[in-house]
Amino acid sequence: MTIRRSAENPIITPAMLRPSRAGHVVIGVFNPGCIRHGDETLLLLRVAEAPVPRDDREVLAPWFDVETGDIAVKRWARDAMALDTSDPRVIVSGGRTWLTSISHFRVGRSRDGIHFDIGDAPAMSAATALESFGIEDPRITLLDGTYWINYSAVSPRGIATALASTRDFVTFERHGVIFAPPNRDVTLFPERVNGRYFALHRPMPEGIGEHAVWSASSPDLMAWGDHRYVAGARAGMWDDGKVGGGAVPFRVRVGGRDAWLAIYHGVRSTPLQYALGALLLDADDPSRVIGRSREPVLAPEAPYERHGFFDGVVFTCGLLVEGDRVRVYYGAADGVTAVADLSLDTIIAGLA
Amino acid sequence: MTIRRSAENPIITPAMLRPSRAGHVVIGVFNPGCIRHGDETLLLLRVAEAPVPRDDREVLAPWFDVETGDIAVKRWARDAMALDTSDPRVIVSGGRTWLTSISHFRVGRSRDGIHFDIGDAPAMSAATALESFGIEDPRITLLDGTYWINYSAVSPRGIATALASTRDFVTFERHGVIFAPPNRDVTLFPERVNGRYFALHRPMPEGIGEHAVWSASSPDLMAWGDHRYVAGARAGMWDDGKVGGGAVPFRVRVGGRDAWLAIYHGVRSTPLQYALGALLLDADDPSRVIGRSREPVLAPEAPYERHGFFDGVVFTCGLLVEGDRVRVYYGAADGVTAVADLSLDTIIAGLA
Repeated sequence: MTIRRSAENPIITPAMLRPSRAGHVVIGVFNPGCIRHGDETLLLLRVAEAPVPRDDREVLAPWFDVETGDIAVKRWARDAMALDTSDPRVIVSGGRTWLTSISHFRVGRSRDGIHFDIGDAPAMSAATALESFGIEDPRITLLDGTYWINYSAVSPRGIATALASTRDFVTFERHGVIFAPPNRDVTLFPERVNGRYFALHRPMPEGIGEHAVWSASSPDLMAWGDHRYVAGARAGMWDDGKVGGGAVPFRVRVGGRDAWLAIYHGVRSTPLQYALGALLLDADDPSRVIGRSREPVLAPEAPYERHGFFDGVVFTCGLLVEGDRVRVYYGAADGVTAVADLSLDTIIAGLA
Repeated sequence: MTIRRSAENPIITPAMLRPSRAGHVVIGVFNPGCIRHGDETLLLLRVAEAPVPRDDREVLAPWFDVETGDIAVKRWARDAMALDTSDPRVIVSGGRTWLTSISHFRVGRSRDGIHFDIGDAPAMSAATALESFGIEDPRITLLDGTYWINYSAVSPRGIATALASTRDFVTFERHGVIFAPPNRDVTLFPERVNGRYFALHRPMPEGIGEHAVWSASSPDLMAWGDHRYVAGARAGMWDDGKVGGGAVPFRVRVGGRDAWLAIYHGVRSTPLQYALGALLLDADDPSRVIGRSREPVLAPEAPYERHGFFDGVVFTCGLLVEGDRVRVYYGAADGVTAVADLSLDTIIAGLA
């Protein structure tokens, strides 16, 4: 695999950003959605902020209180009974799960695709009861002249996928929840397929079921049906744990035929690793897999991918294709943003 | 609460039915959908069948093999390592969950609503990869002259809700999965609300989230969106564990105003119990709860409700309303079908 990581990686780090509010610190800027906007590369960045504890005996969980319209902070003594803080992302207390940070979105703009101007103010942040633990992992799809943004709406009621739209990345309109919990890692196709909108999504059943990639179609982007199973984890391979959507799919020609290429994420169980691979999908029925990466197209190898807030993660929500170059923007170790150029021919050659 | 259980309860038991195939036994007939059809009461019954083991050292799991179009049987030695058979409904082996029985649907017809003629042949049975563990818990809604049947499609890929339709209960057309896994206990409203079809559904997130009642709306019954949280479990009450849909909602007048009444099921954690209660929902926005039962309207008290395949369960998928009489058909202890007449006035008086 020909992979060119930017020499300036990680290109965006928490140290480059000011927190959006007093008493908080930026702990992550990662998993950006990406699109060309005018002559700029535009990233919609997930920015995770955490309240600063008074001392290290305190454990905090921020949440958006829809009653007050403001962020509130839940506090525990670190040595409290039955407090599970083993996963840095969550706090489990009394059977309930809280997050240690709350994410919003900021816009980053760049001429060269490497150096981004990022404002201090959120472009979108938690605003509803279904977003009280924040909004995460935006994907941007241009359809009919409007930019459609789907994202994870996280709350004690579950992790759902919600939809918003914008024309200018200044004002955003919300359209509610399009995939009920537990469902995330949704990617909307940039064209209708047989007259219908099309998406990949990732239900998360436990017990009976698996965390796998499904498809759905829609007459209007708001209501989704005809859910089909597309691709699951593969025993003995790099994606043996679970799989889910990554970047927005794009059209390719392979062997003289049109198809869709979707960069997805696959989780290896042991040792735990989040890597990226490709699904080649039928042009007219994208629920049908016609090829899949034997090996990851990008796996955590660089130090900033192997070590960070959550070790061993590369995770993408957006990319730009130009000829053979697939420029993937991705979150590394759940903390920073990096970019790598992959070769489309090499990705296709690695499909089985 | 005025509850009149039929003196002939349970009105339908496995002993009344012949198995649909050799080598199998009917272990349950329960959770029927219900509707008036001509001058008859029609039940669409969930019939659970289990393969008969050669001896008691054997544990079996039936499944529909879409390749062969036939039921296959997975076999284990009962004393096999790492085999969990503690829940009579499932077998957990090597991290995978299997079911001990596979369900299909049969039609039952009755003039008096108590004595039903039930054929030996399935009306609908597993037919797709997403139904390989069977089809369960049908609900019937009459809309635009067609009977719409939603049901749980169970497979190793998860528990999803699928849609079928019929005009005669002889031939059925499938319309695919309308709610991606994990989602069951869906009820379709019998009228459009503000021009859109409307449903209650029950996502099943684990970790972050809860098993609660949500709503969704649709332009065409096939594609569903605008998912909203409606009602969750209530600490310290009879439904403190989880809640989900029950029978198809119906229109009522309360205090001179129209509203929807939905009989739902609530699970008490300790001791475990499945009971029924009512949600009163706004006529124009059924995602808005305006009343809810303080106590169950029907709880497992009769011997056939307290003891059976799975103890302590009353669970409804269908009812008939006539004046003040709400005739609830329900599964008891996950094994038999019973019927009880409740008073609508009493249900409404018990709302808070």
